[in-house]
Amino acid sequence: MSRFAEGPDPVFHELNRSLPFDRRLWPQDVAQSRAHAGMLAAQQIIGQEDRDAIHAALATVETELAEERFPFADADEDIHMAIERRVTELAGPAGGRLHTARSRNDQVATDLALWVREEADAASELVTGLMRALCNAAERHLDWPMPGYTHLQRAQPVYLSHHLLAYVWMLDRDRVRLAAVRASAGTLPLGAGALAGVNFVTDRAAVAAALGFEHGPAPNSIDAVSNRDFALDFLAAAATCATHLSRLGAEIVLFSSEEFGFCEVSDAWASGSSIMPQKKNPDAAELLRAKAPRVAGHLVALHGVMHGLPLTYNKDLQEDKEHLFDAADTLSLCLRAATGMIATTTWNAERLHAASGDEMIAAVDLADLLVRRGLPFREAHGVVAGLVRDALAAGVPLSGLSREQLAARSELIDEEYYEVLRRGTWLESKVSAGGTSLDRVCEQLADARALLAA
Amino acid sequence: MSRFAEGPDPVFHELNRSLPFDRRLWPQDVAQSRAHAGMLAAQQIIGQEDRDAIHAALATVETELAEERFPFADADEDIHMAIERRVTELAGPAGGRLHTARSRNDQVATDLALWVREEADAASELVTGLMRALCNAAERHLDWPMPGYTHLQRAQPVYLSHHLLAYVWMLDRDRVRLAAVRASAGTLPLGAGALAGVNFVTDRAAVAAALGFEHGPAPNSIDAVSNRDFALDFLAAAATCATHLSRLGAEIVLFSSEEFGFCEVSDAWASGSSIMPQKKNPDAAELLRAKAPRVAGHLVALHGVMHGLPLTYNKDLQEDKEHLFDAADTLSLCLRAATGMIATTTWNAERLHAASGDEMIAAVDLADLLVRRGLPFREAHGVVAGLVRDALAAGVPLSGLSREQLAARSELIDEEYYEVLRRGTWLESKVSAGGTSLDRVCEQLADARALLAA
Amino acid sequence: MSRFAEGPDPVFHELNRSLPFDRRLWPQDVAQSRAHAGMLAAQQIIGQEDRDAIHAALATVETELAEERFPFADADEDIHMAIERRVTELAGPAGGRLHTARSRNDQVATDLALWVREEADAASELVTGLMRALCNAAERHLDWPMPGYTHLQRAQPVYLSHHLLAYVWMLDRDRVRLAAVRASAGTLPLGAGALAGVNFVTDRAAVAAALGFEHGPAPNSIDAVSNRDFALDFLAAAATCATHLSRLGAEIVLFSSEEFGFCEVSDAWASGSSIMPQKKNPDAAELLRAKAPRVAGHLVALHGVMHGLPLTYNKDLQEDKEHLFDAADTLSLCLRAATGMIATTTWNAERLHAASGDEMIAAVDLADLLVRRGLPFREAHGVVAGLVRDALAAGVPLSGLSREQLAARSELIDEEYYEVLRRGTWLESKVSAGGTSLDRVCEQLADARALLAA
Amino acid sequence: MSRFAEGPDPVFHELNRSLPFDRRLWPQDVAQSRAHAGMLAAQQIIGQEDRDAIHAALATVETELAEERFPFADADEDIHMAIERRVTELAGPAGGRLHTARSRNDQVATDLALWVREEADAASELVTGLMRALCNAAERHLDWPMPGYTHLQRAQPVYLSHHLLAYVWMLDRDRVRLAAVRASAGTLPLGAGALAGVNFVTDRAAVAAALGFEHGPAPNSIDAVSNRDFALDFLAAAATCATHLSRLGAEIVLFSSEEFGFCEVSDAWASGSSIMPQKKNPDAAELLRAKAPRVAGHLVALHGVMHGLPLTYNKDLQEDKEHLFDAADTLSLCLRAATGMIATTTWNAERLHAASGDEMIAAVDLADLLVRRGLPFREAHGVVAGLVRDALAAGVPLSGLSREQLAARSELIDEEYYEVLRRGTWLESKVSAGGTSLDRVCEQLADARALLAA
Repeated sequence: MSRFAEGPDPVFHELNRSLPFDRRLWPQDVAQSRAHAGMLAAQQIIGQEDRDAIHAALATVETELAEERFPFADADEDIHMAIERRVTELAGPAGGRLHTARSRNDQVATDLALWVREEADAASELVTGLMRALCNAAERHLDWPMPGYTHLQRAQPVYLSHHLLAYVWMLDRDRVRLAAVRASAGTLPLGAGALAGVNFVTDRAAVAAALGFEHGPAPNSIDAVSNRDFALDFLAAAATCATHLSRLGAEIVLFSSEEFGFCEVSDAWASGSSIMPQKKNPDAAELLRAKAPRVAGHLVALHGVMHGLPLTYNKDLQEDKEHLFDAADTLSLCLRAATGMIATTTWNAERLHAASGDEMIAAVDLADLLVRRGLPFREAHGVVAGLVRDALAAGVPLSGLSREQLAARSELIDEEYYEVLRRGTWLESKVSAGGTSLDRVCEQLADARALLAA
Repeated sequence: MSRFAEGPDPVFHELNRSLPFDRRLWPQDVAQSRAHAGMLAAQQIIGQEDRDAIHAALATVETELAEERFPFADADEDIHMAIERRVTELAGPAGGRLHTARSRNDQVATDLALWVREEADAASELVTGLMRALCNAAERHLDWPMPGYTHLQRAQPVYLSHHLLAYVWMLDRDRVRLAAVRASAGTLPLGAGALAGVNFVTDRAAVAAALGFEHGPAPNSIDAVSNRDFALDFLAAAATCATHLSRLGAEIVLFSSEEFGFCEVSDAWASGSSIMPQKKNPDAAELLRAKAPRVAGHLVALHGVMHGLPLTYNKDLQEDKEHLFDAADTLSLCLRAATGMIATTTWNAERLHAASGDEMIAAVDLADLLVRRGLPFREAHGVVAGLVRDALAAGVPLSGLSREQLAARSELIDEEYYEVLRRGTWLESKVSAGGTSLDRVCEQLADARALLAA
Repeated sequence: MSRFAEGPDPVFHELNRSLPFDRRLWPQDVAQSRAHAGMLAAQQIIGQEDRDAIHAALATVETELAEERFPFADADEDIHMAIERRVTELAGPAGGRLHTARSRNDQVATDLALWVREEADAASELVTGLMRALCNAAERHLDWPMPGYTHLQRAQPVYLSHHLLAYVWMLDRDRVRLAAVRASAGTLPLGAGALAGVNFVTDRAAVAAALGFEHGPAPNSIDAVSNRDFALDFLAAAATCATHLSRLGAEIVLFSSEEFGFCEVSDAWASGSSIMPQKKNPDAAELLRAKAPRVAGHLVALHGVMHGLPLTYNKDLQEDKEHLFDAADTLSLCLRAATGMIATTTWNAERLHAASGDEMIAAVDLADLLVRRGLPFREAHGVVAGLVRDALAAGVPLSGLSREQLAARSELIDEEYYEVLRRGTWLESKVSAGGTSLDRVCEQLADARALLAA
Repeated sequence: MSRFAEGPDPVFHELNRSLPFDRRLWPQDVAQSRAHAGMLAAQQIIGQEDRDAIHAALATVETELAEERFPFADADEDIHMAIERRVTELAGPAGGRLHTARSRNDQVATDLALWVREEADAASELVTGLMRALCNAAERHLDWPMPGYTHLQRAQPVYLSHHLLAYVWMLDRDRVRLAAVRASAGTLPLGAGALAGVNFVTDRAAVAAALGFEHGPAPNSIDAVSNRDFALDFLAAAATCATHLSRLGAEIVLFSSEEFGFCEVSDAWASGSSIMPQKKNPDAAELLRAKAPRVAGHLVALHGVMHGLPLTYNKDLQEDKEHLFDAADTLSLCLRAATGMIATTTWNAERLHAASGDEMIAAVDLADLLVRRGLPFREAHGVVAGLVRDALAAGVPLSGLSREQLAARSELIDEEYYEVLRRGTWLESKVSAGGTSLDRVCEQLADARALLAA
């Protein structure tokens, strides 16, 4: 097929060959070949009978690949060559016409764009499944108070439902990002040829329509074969989603510790120890945490591949695939694992209740009490900070301070101080939009459910 | 302001203090404080006169900061504290009411979201400017042939205009990404309080409207203060745009070499050498190439910061700013530099012409000639590969092969072979949509201009 | 200084100019200029009086820079040009001789190598300081039991001293790495000229000796100006050290939580909250955690800059500096902060004791008891796992199981079972080298002290 | 083996299972198990007959694995469990004693350290092979002049041998780094148990000696199981080496372009095009360029995994392996490919000669001529810059300037000006150590050969 006398060095063959990883692009390659042959015939670039022979051969190829009995040859460098070779074996000279008005450069970009689109959809589906699992868990624990943390210090109590729903909104942004990936890959490279366009009057719009590229043909043939933005976009979306999952995983690890004791993953999502019989380790949660840097690593690697690369196709672009494939597989596995783990994790009402009953957690509410009595917030904050110091010094809870001690800090404090120091108030007083009061959480859950129904 | 007796260690102060870099957020902080105070008064949480005093103080603060005569204090840890302190100095007790129903956590997220939105718009404007410069350059060199390369080997000739326009489409995708960043930062964190919502009946929708957050208040107070997706989105968009510019820079470096000799940057965009008087170095182009990894480094770093981080605010989030600021400044500088450089780079018609006249570049066109005579493309490819070998062996150009030599490879070759081997044909025969024929390029340029007019 | 008529565009000047960040290289630039002039005179390339004039001017320059009254000019692009310009102002024509047999390319590589060597030493000193603080803390808490964790689940008790000493060994590896950085930068670039060597009979070995480059002159002039390996080595060492500190920071955050309650950072290393008066936040520890990705980001960025770069000097290499400088500053600040924080953090004996008393933590010791009685470990592990299940099912501690329950699992269990279930045994039985028994820890501490004394 | 009733969820099994990738650690696992059992018997922790039975079983296991007929079971989570299970099947109860005084945590760290040591050695061997190929190529082209570039602009001529040798020194630094990796992994984790040490009087020094860990047992059991510095060190060394190869690859791509025409890779290391019969693409060189970001991505990913991780073993550490394995395989493949490609690349004397004859390249030599006549270098530089401008304006080479034109710029210029403008002088005058004059290059080659012989 080339002008060369000498065959490839075995090490070069090993380096150059992409078949071991790009064979998974076969459904996309078959689809685009089918559409391409159809267009060629419609434009009378090849005959109807050639098209039919090609289509028949592609149907056979599709079956052989789906049934894992496709006869790969050692010399097949990539899936595209393998399929074209096999089509020619099956269809005879007609097969030799399939690559008319097409180059490997636009072909591979098209296959990859198709794959990214499907994978973005699949990831989005899995994200939706996790959102649903989180909504279900939120519903099951609607009014379970737990401490909210800032700086990992107890800050203010919230409902567990409210905490779980926070992840739903993070994940919904992931869906938005994945939809943008789909759109970013929505322009058809095919028909750009090697880089300059082709010598035939083709109908790229028809191919775009047949393959579902809603933004039509790429407007510039050079950009069409040079562009891997959609791959970067996928990796960026995957990295952020994986990072979200790493936060979820890290929290489950933390909440599963004996010290927190807020939750326990089910046996089906935990491991034992090779030497410590008592251990129940939240391995799945740890791996969710550990996988995010892998996906981010793929992203920075592909940015690196594209860095300073002259336009049109360079072999460097072959390095897009393994990064994409592993990122997609990793994300898919993590999403499925997170969904299963969240669905079966049990929460410990007692431990959550006890931890959220810490009176210190109400300090801001006490300050706001003074604000309502006219004290500027900044001064009220200072008064309560004094009370906190008094309580810590005396080794008593805030409610253990005497009226005299209160009065010494501000004359605006009265009985309501002690009343506020009952937990329920702290939660239910957070009535602002998006706040943790139960009504607000119920609204939020309804909104989240509506998103999922859409 | 805290419960502490002891003051901060000087090293801690140095580590903890963000004022040296977050002071640039002052316009955002003033804007949000103004909107927040307005809402507090409208909701009767503070009085009208308090609001007026705060607004007056904010106006003074704004002027002081704009004129760089704001009296910063050593103890000011961040711009938010500095402004609140100064407002209180100016407005008295009313100033102490500004932080009612607000926390540093939602405040800083809001400032940053506002900043990201403005910066995304600014970057988009600069991208548009560069697109315009490229369209102008394309127009000036509409029908200048140049070699198109794949694998940095001459492949097929294209028009210089077509090559330059490839960058316009890359950059247009950057605009789409930057618009998505804007939308991603379009939800208002303010009003989430520290993490749980606030104890007051606030009107977050009004604040969102006042500050231009088109998607309204963040639906979950925990997510509102934990979320830095919009920062990751900005960095991802910036990294991809910077990578595009690195490709442009790398090509200018390459094309400026004596060996290519396709272009020369103007003196205003080049440097000399400290010891070699003859040198004219394309430093700006090299720096465009070199800056992309810096932006990608910021992206991977912020993914790292967010990795495994428990929800709500952690001090780690302070590390978002320097990454964002440097990425935005770097991108802005690179875009401005690319625009100026492209606008003044001169192209060498003679060198481009000579390089694109290489006959080998027409091999695919010869193959397509045989295709039109009925030979399957794959066989035609083989025939021409044989002719290439013959020509290389004989040390002649393709047109130097005799009729006998041609006939020995295929009986389908005739006189047209020699005709095709005239350059004009090669370019103008690329009539497919997005191809390099002049009509197609003119269409493309018109489409690009239309995008810019929109 | 160049062949150009037109001056630089202001944007180009902004992009190209490195003075704002490379000015910190002045001590290195003065030192190398001094050594270079000395060698030139010794080789009779310049006269003694020229050398003396240059040395006198350099002394003035040094003072002016040290006292921050050096007269920088707008046209000074970098510190090297600024110093050469100023030397020429001060020394007249002799100054114009300083750049004989030297290029900016070898000059800048030399300055940077000198800087890296000094910075590696400085970082190593700071690492040593932190190791000392950790040894001191270990000594103060030599026999305080605490739970050891795997998967953040309580696994086996250890002494706090043992845990703290783990960091000492991590940090000692950082010192080894930093020493390797020093050696990696121990070859002198100066004298390589622009890339090809110089037209003078110089004495590079003498310059190497004068500047302390123990490995002598770089053996290849092209490599000398192309090489930034020492910068990558510094960044890799810094990234790993910062990652170590991130683990320390993360543990302090965790151990400071109310749930763990193992330690409390001093007021001097903590922050309050803008709205929650009760909060004491371990900000320094959080920032130690958050800074590691920043340093790793610089590393990946510099790998990106070097990626695919043709040999000898390219302007891209200017991008080495800001990555190095920020990484070094960040590491220095983190090391100083970690040292101060560790020195003043207090540990809570009661909470540590209570947590390490959890009987489940002794399960492996019970298994080993059975091993000593002849049961293969794998079976012993199974027996104790059964006992754990029994205890959990019955809601009793392991010591609450009756003799009958024990016998039902294995006839090898006797009274010693109950004896083992006393904490002291669990710790002191870890007698293997490097284990947590007190004798072993004391040995370890002595070894660590010996390292620090060296 | 655990306390669990319920088995793992299939998705959890897929996530958690490391056997698909860690099976390659079997030789290390067999070796350490053998050494461990030997020590246990020597310390009388197990009997001699148990040891013999274990050793016999391990011999069988080794054969089964080497011959790829080891009977893996679905429940085998990792290679360690698979081997222990099989040993127990083969050796009966004795097999159950193998895991005495050992944990999966110290076991896996030991296997990985062993693997890293072997892999570092193997990579070093391959680096040496490439150095040898480069020395051979340098020797074959000892006195072939070529242009040296800075900023990709012709700067000064050098010998091709000198240019090729630059890579030899880069690679020699890679060997130093790989040796440091070996040392960094030279401390034995085994015997640390799960984290606290073990309940038996073991002899870790003997195990270290048996397995070749020259630095003996890890001094702290917690650090022993937490530490992955050696993995980071390997990845850092691999990333820098891969970056070196990316520079080599990029230069071959550049030099293979028609415009440079300096070299041509052999047919065995090039690819054709699917549609352009004339194309000969340097795919191997492109892939060398493209693979570096992949290795750097693995490094940043593992830094990410370790970031903020609490001490001792966390499941996150399982993510070390795939990064390491792919980095090592990628580096190995790239080194082998670079060696084969360099050995067979042919250089074009004519093109190199023509390009290096460009007179402009001698400008610094002309300036140095004036320096020898007493003009300060900075002024001489200015004089020659003027001559360059004169020549460019007149469209003549530097030697085309008349004596009058020369005199107008400086009275110090005489006939020697025209003499200098002969290429040989330019190269041979670079007599400084490490310079490009032939004597210096021969010295350099001899030094490089000596390194390789060592």
